[in-house]
Amino acid sequence: ALLALLRTDRVLAVRTHVNVDPAKLKSLRQRWSVKPSEMSKKTLNPIRAIVDGMKLTPNPEKPMIALSIGDPTVFGNLPTDDTVLQAMKEAIDSHKYNGYAPSVGYQKSREVVADFYSCPEAPLDGKDVILTSGCSQAIELAISVLCNPGDNILVPRPGFSLYKTLAVSMGIQVKHYNLLPEKSWEIDLQHLESLIDDKTACLIVNNPSNPCGSVFSREHLHKILSVASRNCIPILADEIYGDMVFPGCDFQPLAPLSSDVPILSCGGLAKRWLVPGWRMGWILIHDRNDIFGTAIREGLVKLSQRILGPCTVVQGALESILNDTPPEFYQGTISFLKSNSEICYSELSTVPGLNPVMPSGAMYIMVGIEMEHFPDFQNDVEFTERLVTEQSVFCLPATAFEYPNFFRIVVTVPEEMMIEACIRIREFCARHYRPRSQDSHELDQ
Amino acid sequence: ALLALLRTDRVLAVRTHVNVDPAKLKSLRQRWSVKPSEMSKKTLNPIRAIVDGMKLTPNPEKPMIALSIGDPTVFGNLPTDDTVLQAMKEAIDSHKYNGYAPSVGYQKSREVVADFYSCPEAPLDGKDVILTSGCSQAIELAISVLCNPGDNILVPRPGFSLYKTLAVSMGIQVKHYNLLPEKSWEIDLQHLESLIDDKTACLIVNNPSNPCGSVFSREHLHKILSVASRNCIPILADEIYGDMVFPGCDFQPLAPLSSDVPILSCGGLAKRWLVPGWRMGWILIHDRNDIFGTAIREGLVKLSQRILGPCTVVQGALESILNDTPPEFYQGTISFLKSNSEICYSELSTVPGLNPVMPSGAMYIMVGIEMEHFPDFQNDVEFTERLVTEQSVFCLPATAFEYPNFFRIVVTVPEEMMIEACIRIREFCARHYRPRSQDSHELDQ
Ligand SMILES: Cc1ncc(COP(=O)(O)O)c(C=O)c1O
Ligand SMILES: Cc1ncc(COP(=O)(O)O)c(C=O)c1O
Repeated sequence: ALLALLRTDRVLAVRTHVNVDPAKLKSLRQRWSVKPSEMSKKTLNPIRAIVDGMKLTPNPEKPMIALSIGDPTVFGNLPTDDTVLQAMKEAIDSHKYNGYAPSVGYQKSREVVADFYSCPEAPLDGKDVILTSGCSQAIELAISVLCNPGDNILVPRPGFSLYKTLAVSMGIQVKHYNLLPEKSWEIDLQHLESLIDDKTACLIVNNPSNPCGSVFSREHLHKILSVASRNCIPILADEIYGDMVFPGCDFQPLAPLSSDVPILSCGGLAKRWLVPGWRMGWILIHDRNDIFGTAIREGLVKLSQRILGPCTVVQGALESILNDTPPEFYQGTISFLKSNSEICYSELSTVPGLNPVMPSGAMYIMVGIEMEHFPDFQNDVEFTERLVTEQSVFCLPATAFEYPNFFRIVVTVPEEMMIEACIRIREFCARHYRPRSQDSHELDQ
Repeated sequence: ALLALLRTDRVLAVRTHVNVDPAKLKSLRQRWSVKPSEMSKKTLNPIRAIVDGMKLTPNPEKPMIALSIGDPTVFGNLPTDDTVLQAMKEAIDSHKYNGYAPSVGYQKSREVVADFYSCPEAPLDGKDVILTSGCSQAIELAISVLCNPGDNILVPRPGFSLYKTLAVSMGIQVKHYNLLPEKSWEIDLQHLESLIDDKTACLIVNNPSNPCGSVFSREHLHKILSVASRNCIPILADEIYGDMVFPGCDFQPLAPLSSDVPILSCGGLAKRWLVPGWRMGWILIHDRNDIFGTAIREGLVKLSQRILGPCTVVQGALESILNDTPPEFYQGTISFLKSNSEICYSELSTVPGLNPVMPSGAMYIMVGIEMEHFPDFQNDVEFTERLVTEQSVFCLPATAFEYPNFFRIVVTVPEEMMIEACIRIREFCARHYRPRSQDSHELDQ
């Protein structure tokens, strides 16, 4: 049949294309065969892969509670500030922000971001800021400019999956360094350093952390910088959750602590201003020792010209968003996140078989599962899958963050839902928990 | 000196890093050396390269007239419609468009675009639409999903430079097929077909054209489709200027004319709705013969997850923008562009040494330079450079579109400026024109 097909095609080709040199026919395509590129096939999103593979049928008797999505806006309880919306409407009414901006953003908008983040130890001005389509594109550009195929990058485990998705699609190898839950998810520095080789192009530090909700101390950041400094590795600091830390804790941006390590700090409006859909991100270029020099800056400008930057209306609104949003707005978000985290932590820490780790910021809490006490489930994926089927509560299995035997809870849901979810998780665990000594697995079957 | 440097670093490394296995020291980086990636270096924007290399000092006695930028908003004479701005403000006030959308766009917004472009011969529904950050990202995703490094793509000459910029950065070879100015910039089909080989992954067809302002007839489009069909090459149809054609002329989208050739049609709000800064683009997937199948669709979805789609506010406004913008708005833009094109064409066609080609759509007009009559200048770059120095009129040399001896005029400027610019161009040409017979080049020097 295939042969017949080929033959028909060839005849057709000859018939419809009489001018062609017969010798060239070999090189013409004779059949349709359009395949997706290797790059698109290598662009793998582990969260999608895992979630799509799960049987997620909620218990019809209980309304679904999704604690899985890192989008603070889905329940309507965390609206952005009116200042932010007003700034957008003013930008629209001004009629000034409809044309093309420079691909790295309007100069004025870049300066606004620079001023907002500048500090004496790490001064920034407009030329040090590149505006991007979300923090995701900031990360994409940063990796793209620093790494070649065959290089490797160091990423946290557990960690945000986009780093690996992007790197692998570009032929860059990913090496995971461990975070230590027993040390509030600090980096295992020895492990980190042991991974460095002469192909290491970049160290990614995510602070505050998704999925851990951890916030590094100044001391720990100094130690991370020492590793980077003595091995001469530039840092991509993913600080999208910057300043989203609970009272009593302090967010320390990485760049002011070092004058030699060149740092691309990635951030954006998504989380702190609660507008992730607006796709406004940025790269802050910290290079006080002139190691990036003009070459990396020019590389970033070139890369930005591929898709020409973020929406100009949001760029036009940036000045007012950054300068006029009242402090109470930020405080309100943070105290809500802290309160929900405390509820969740205190509820789950008394559940036999679970070990939540109290976060200090961001919007997540990681919960360890003592799998040996839950013989009904092979792993965190099965555990969370059955939590949906039986209790209509969906948490992401931390396998999605390369960290089995944990699950991640998003703490942005309304308080009642947080409480109800914890009650259901407790019931679920009580039903499946088996004390260590007896081999209940065999008894069950 | 270098040796000394290396030695100091090594000592430092040993001192600060006592736990390290000395045997491993060799693999540690000993000096800072952060270079931009090959990919970023290969991301070359010819327009930038050429313009940055030009000496663009206007004549201080004449105000500058820039006919170089493909941004219809810069002079304020072509505002978008109020409906469009109102739609944005309503989207903001609804509070519904602040969260993450799916990376390919909200289902509702995809359906709105599908309905707008659907027709009986080429029906579309929501799943056939991918929303992107401008038409630029649509083109980037389309090339990324269809081509592997080592493949080649066919692009028009003269043509929009982004195709080459993107392809070269991805290691994809670019083959230029000729457009024929004497045939209203139709494609030289024999030349096109002669370029096809078994590594040809995609044919890019840009209609209406930047920089030519040409619009292909239905008959010509049929012939292009035949070439694609008998050689089994999928098409990327860049239709960002779709429907922007002068009265009396007809815009025919490519996809309805073929049922076998799979087509990714790229478009967006930038040009027709006069809001290029908003970065709203789309890919329409036409695949009635199921040649792309699910694989290409899935590839596009995966690629879209890298940066998560365009601004949600604009997505939310799409329904009203597409359905409620009054026909008079589109007509107004078009009649303005036609009138300005006619002014420009009739003025310049009587200038000795210039050969403008009358456009039928888009917002550009190409003007041929009889270089042999302008011995003062080596090429179109020098010609346009001196036009700035002497007359403060800036047109892009068509070398930026791989087409020497032409320049491109953008016809979106206010009428008075268009007229004034033509007068200045006429003066400039009169000053430098030399009749063919005398060899004035040598006399000058
Ligand atoms: C750690 C981290 N970095 C980056 C991002 C991406 O942010 P954006 O939505 O601005 O692209 C996220 C989003 O969840 C994140 O958790
Ligand atoms: C032919 C062509 N395609 C695509 C684009 C890019 O459009 P967008 O601004 O939506 O990225 C342009 C912009 O000038 C263009 O001329």
